[in-house]
Amino acid sequence: MINRFKTGLPIETAAIPSENRGLYKDNTVLDINAFPNIMSTNKECIDGLYKFSLSDKAMVFGLGETVRGINKKGWIYESFCADDPNHQEGKRSLYGAHHFIVIKDDKCFGLFIDNPGRVTFDIGYTDRDRLVIKSENPEQYIYLIDGNEPYDIIKQFLRLIGKAYIPPKWAFGFGQSRWGYNSAENVREVVRQHRENHIPIDMVYMDIDYMEGFRDFTVREDNFPDFSAFVREMHEQHIHLVPIIDAGIKEEAGYDIYDEGEEGGFFCKDADGNTFVAAVWPGRSVFPDFMNKESRDWFGSKYKKLIDAGIDGFWNDMNEPALFYTPIRLKKAVDKVNGLSKGNPGIDSFFEISGSVNSLQNSLEDYESFYHKMDDGSVVRHDRVHNLYGMNMTRAAAEKMKEDYPDKEFLLFSRASYIGAHRYGGIWQGDNKSWWSHLKMNVAMTANLNMCGFLFTGADTGGFGDDVTEDLLIRWLSFSIFTPLMRNHSATGTREQEFYRFKDTDTFRHIIGIRYRLLPYIYESYLHAAENYEMLLRPLVFDYPYDERVLDIEDELMLGDRILIAPVVEQNKNGRMVYLPEDMIMVRLTRDAEGRFLEERSEVLAGDNYINVPLSDVVFFLKKGMTLELSEFKEYID
Amino acid sequence: MINRFKTGLPIETAAIPSENRGLYKDNTVLDINAFPNIMSTNKECIDGLYKFSLSDKAMVFGLGETVRGINKKGWIYESFCADDPNHQEGKRSLYGAHHFIVIKDDKCFGLFIDNPGRVTFDIGYTDRDRLVIKSENPEQYIYLIDGNEPYDIIKQFLRLIGKAYIPPKWAFGFGQSRWGYNSAENVREVVRQHRENHIPIDMVYMDIDYMEGFRDFTVREDNFPDFSAFVREMHEQHIHLVPIIDAGIKEEAGYDIYDEGEEGGFFCKDADGNTFVAAVWPGRSVFPDFMNKESRDWFGSKYKKLIDAGIDGFWNDMNEPALFYTPIRLKKAVDKVNGLSKGNPGIDSFFEISGSVNSLQNSLEDYESFYHKMDDGSVVRHDRVHNLYGMNMTRAAAEKMKEDYPDKEFLLFSRASYIGAHRYGGIWQGDNKSWWSHLKMNVAMTANLNMCGFLFTGADTGGFGDDVTEDLLIRWLSFSIFTPLMRNHSATGTREQEFYRFKDTDTFRHIIGIRYRLLPYIYESYLHAAENYEMLLRPLVFDYPYDERVLDIEDELMLGDRILIAPVVEQNKNGRMVYLPEDMIMVRLTRDAEGRFLEERSEVLAGDNYINVPLSDVVFFLKKGMTLELSEFKEYID
Repeated sequence: MINRFKTGLPIETAAIPSENRGLYKDNTVLDINAFPNIMSTNKECIDGLYKFSLSDKAMVFGLGETVRGINKKGWIYESFCADDPNHQEGKRSLYGAHHFIVIKDDKCFGLFIDNPGRVTFDIGYTDRDRLVIKSENPEQYIYLIDGNEPYDIIKQFLRLIGKAYIPPKWAFGFGQSRWGYNSAENVREVVRQHRENHIPIDMVYMDIDYMEGFRDFTVREDNFPDFSAFVREMHEQHIHLVPIIDAGIKEEAGYDIYDEGEEGGFFCKDADGNTFVAAVWPGRSVFPDFMNKESRDWFGSKYKKLIDAGIDGFWNDMNEPALFYTPIRLKKAVDKVNGLSKGNPGIDSFFEISGSVNSLQNSLEDYESFYHKMDDGSVVRHDRVHNLYGMNMTRAAAEKMKEDYPDKEFLLFSRASYIGAHRYGGIWQGDNKSWWSHLKMNVAMTANLNMCGFLFTGADTGGFGDDVTEDLLIRWLSFSIFTPLMRNHSATGTREQEFYRFKDTDTFRHIIGIRYRLLPYIYESYLHAAENYEMLLRPLVFDYPYDERVLDIEDELMLGDRILIAPVVEQNKNGRMVYLPEDMIMVRLTRDAEGRFLEERSEVLAGDNYINVPLSDVVFFLKKGMTLELSEFKEYID
Repeated sequence: MINRFKTGLPIETAAIPSENRGLYKDNTVLDINAFPNIMSTNKECIDGLYKFSLSDKAMVFGLGETVRGINKKGWIYESFCADDPNHQEGKRSLYGAHHFIVIKDDKCFGLFIDNPGRVTFDIGYTDRDRLVIKSENPEQYIYLIDGNEPYDIIKQFLRLIGKAYIPPKWAFGFGQSRWGYNSAENVREVVRQHRENHIPIDMVYMDIDYMEGFRDFTVREDNFPDFSAFVREMHEQHIHLVPIIDAGIKEEAGYDIYDEGEEGGFFCKDADGNTFVAAVWPGRSVFPDFMNKESRDWFGSKYKKLIDAGIDGFWNDMNEPALFYTPIRLKKAVDKVNGLSKGNPGIDSFFEISGSVNSLQNSLEDYESFYHKMDDGSVVRHDRVHNLYGMNMTRAAAEKMKEDYPDKEFLLFSRASYIGAHRYGGIWQGDNKSWWSHLKMNVAMTANLNMCGFLFTGADTGGFGDDVTEDLLIRWLSFSIFTPLMRNHSATGTREQEFYRFKDTDTFRHIIGIRYRLLPYIYESYLHAAENYEMLLRPLVFDYPYDERVLDIEDELMLGDRILIAPVVEQNKNGRMVYLPEDMIMVRLTRDAEGRFLEERSEVLAGDNYINVPLSDVVFFLKKGMTLELSEFKEYID
């Protein structure tokens, strides 16, 4: 049962497809008494402040791409899509804005706050027994979903927001990436190493290095001569190239994309009606106004340039949008540095200097200084609809591709997202780090994103920032083989982390091989989840709601209808404790003394079990009475 | 069996007390064949590069204050005392430099590299099967310690480096701290709240706010009028005030400490023989040359000013030393900003601007620009002896206090340290964050520091940086009651985290009360460990070396001779798995329905046990047949 309530004049977000209007009861007046646990004294909640009580045993699920675990209690989250690669526990915002939560208390209920601006969820942070939701601009739709158990509610929500994107089958293969592959030779070497070492691979990603001066939809001629031929050459080796497309467009007369956008009025404007300028990778850049269909259609049509060259997969990035600085604020900061540094700057001046330089990136002041023309013709300041920007970039690509290539499947995923973006493409889990704590977070985040519809997701295996270790990469890969989006990606300047750079190539081949052996199950389970509005990867508590012991298990997940996975997420462990809610078959995928693949099955009883998991093995658990046949080792999908 | 080897002309560090010379065999020539697992091709190792093989099952212990877990395999550590509050997994250096490791492989051996400069330990990072130790300056002493098991080796090492500092008994009480208590009224309020809420407390710490313009050994008159009377007033309430003393001295003619130091030639010099200047909290500052006895005696005598006012505890800080900037490099950075910002700075210029501002703090270039006069009269560039600076600050205080107040006990601890510093005072575990991952790290680091002699240690409970949550504070406190140094400390600008600011005051009172009830055991165990050169808090593998299951347990510790602790270090957990290597008595300290203290004991069998641990309870495990009597609840120790 879903009720929709409205306060003020909300901005339409496309979170709910229009054809799903019949799925909820539309209430024109907010009936605060309909909300379980509500405590707000201001019964109209016109200030956008909703207070709920939380009992000691209450659990809260949802919020998609956020730090910390699966039970979201005990932190404060602010949704405002943020380009922040240092996402430790203390951060409140990440790349996505997913305002959907489920409260499991004496009653169960779900809330989706359909508001494209900043919404804060204080979940037992200020007070351990209070959930407080606050919208900066309280004009919004609120969907209240009732159900008996969290997963009932989540399934209703998944139905409401529509069917998840289904990528081409080859996109379930492995993809290798690194910020730094700046020539066809680099890419060839990556492919050669994988093929020679028989490490399965289907994709090589192309980060910003492939472009001509970071200009979208260009390919640098010097290092990628005859790009179409190169794409063909890669296809012949069963490799799909997946280039990045950034949100910012270089401000440069003569650059066709810039010229066309200027002429068509497709870019965001400042308060004076001039094209808004901020710097990202190309230096001074302008930003397509994805909030209206004309701009979306125009931008979406530009992918054709690369599609014509044979490209069939894209990765949309920097679309929070990230802003390194605006020229106007940089000048202010520099002036400040000059002013403060006359004579001998004291310690306060020093902190002002470093503060003014360090506050240039992704500043709220900048986000408040440009405007969108919306689909309905209205003009809205960016910060009010900030959380929609990334979704609409991917929507631009997806809708136009569907229109222009109705029979072709594209791989498409994004960094920033909002609820509903899962219909257009996947998302990866942003610029993480080579930390064990980020592997652990990856497990929880994958479940949390599934709750919000994002089935096609995964994190950068091995971590993007900081230096990886071989054991971390092995353990991370041993989890990533179970996530639909599986790529190894790392930042320039960090330790190179292609699998073939480490001694234990056999183990990497073995583990990735398992992904390909499991592909029928993973792919079928994915399709089943998408078609039936279900989660692919779920916390145990959703499948075993009456087993008290699974309530706080956040490092085991159910995958599809028959597998339980329990990745090792800590360093230097010989194994781990695994709790099984029922007797199951342990499947251990290992190698014999001659290095041949070996599948061992044995029954493990329900309860807590210590399972030995050497780096070389992948272990998971199969429901009794269910079949699971591994297919043959393959080096690519198509 | 300990062998000492020498390469070149090492700098004497005072890591080993001179009276312990009889404990090792002194070899004038390096005999590389004496080292198990050695692989170095250059048998002289005159380049300071030592390569050892590591088998798959090898474990490496030690390194004291470092990130990550107890088994140090799988990371690269660089000892160079670092003021870095963002110590995530990717960091290589923290505040201390503790070049002692123990390798447990086919053979067991320990290595102490007595070198005050930068030493790198690549422990299976570059290659999973290699340990590589590299000293920037390879002139050093190497102590090779043989033994049957890691703990045998550690006990020999603890004996070698001498007896650990024993603080006054009241220093085992609870201390409240915050950067921001800037008046006597603030402090009174903290004390009043604790006393009114009956939350036990023995100390209030005074961070930099109490000083007059951040000048060491001053007290601001405006907010702390008649300081001696205030100290007495606090003593009457059984509160010890513990002020901070920073390493940097304000450069200001007329400030007595500065004038005296200049006149006596007690400050570090630059290459031209002028007093070295860098900015820290007071702005431009100078740095006492703790490397020679005259300067140490002079600086150590200055504590008298506060001791005369009744102070009996100090906390030495910023003694890596932290350097915010040097005037000369700040000017260069500002000039660079100016140069780059002419016209429209491109994206590279932007990164240069932010890079040049952000590289000002704690720069190697600055550490290479000043000099020390050593005890033997030689002049040494700072970077060569960087790791000794903090230790010698605390040594300055400790030695002078012992000389001037032979019958008085002082609380004394430091941020930076080197091996041997444990004889002069304790160390706290630096500027951590309000992260669950830092609580977990606190557990491992406490064991690792114990291996290096630092018995009097503890982390900032609740975390220093970032915002705490009530549940994190409760769980952290539930661990901190077992660490000798127990204080709640937080940074200005973060959420206030005094216990009385949260709703569940009863739980905080209950848990701190347990520390006071356990004090006889903790204090006696501490004395026993110090007198007998043992660790107070140990990983299970040291006590149960033949139990394979404890090899990778890093979140349980042995405390003293009869207790096993197993703190809950993850959020939203109802309990945890606890592995017991033998049948033990579970002691659960809880409250009955009326809120009265309740002690429950029950036997738990050896093996893996799921133990329910609500936030309100403290649970630990007692060896069978051993007694442990809790004393009465107390609100202060003396």
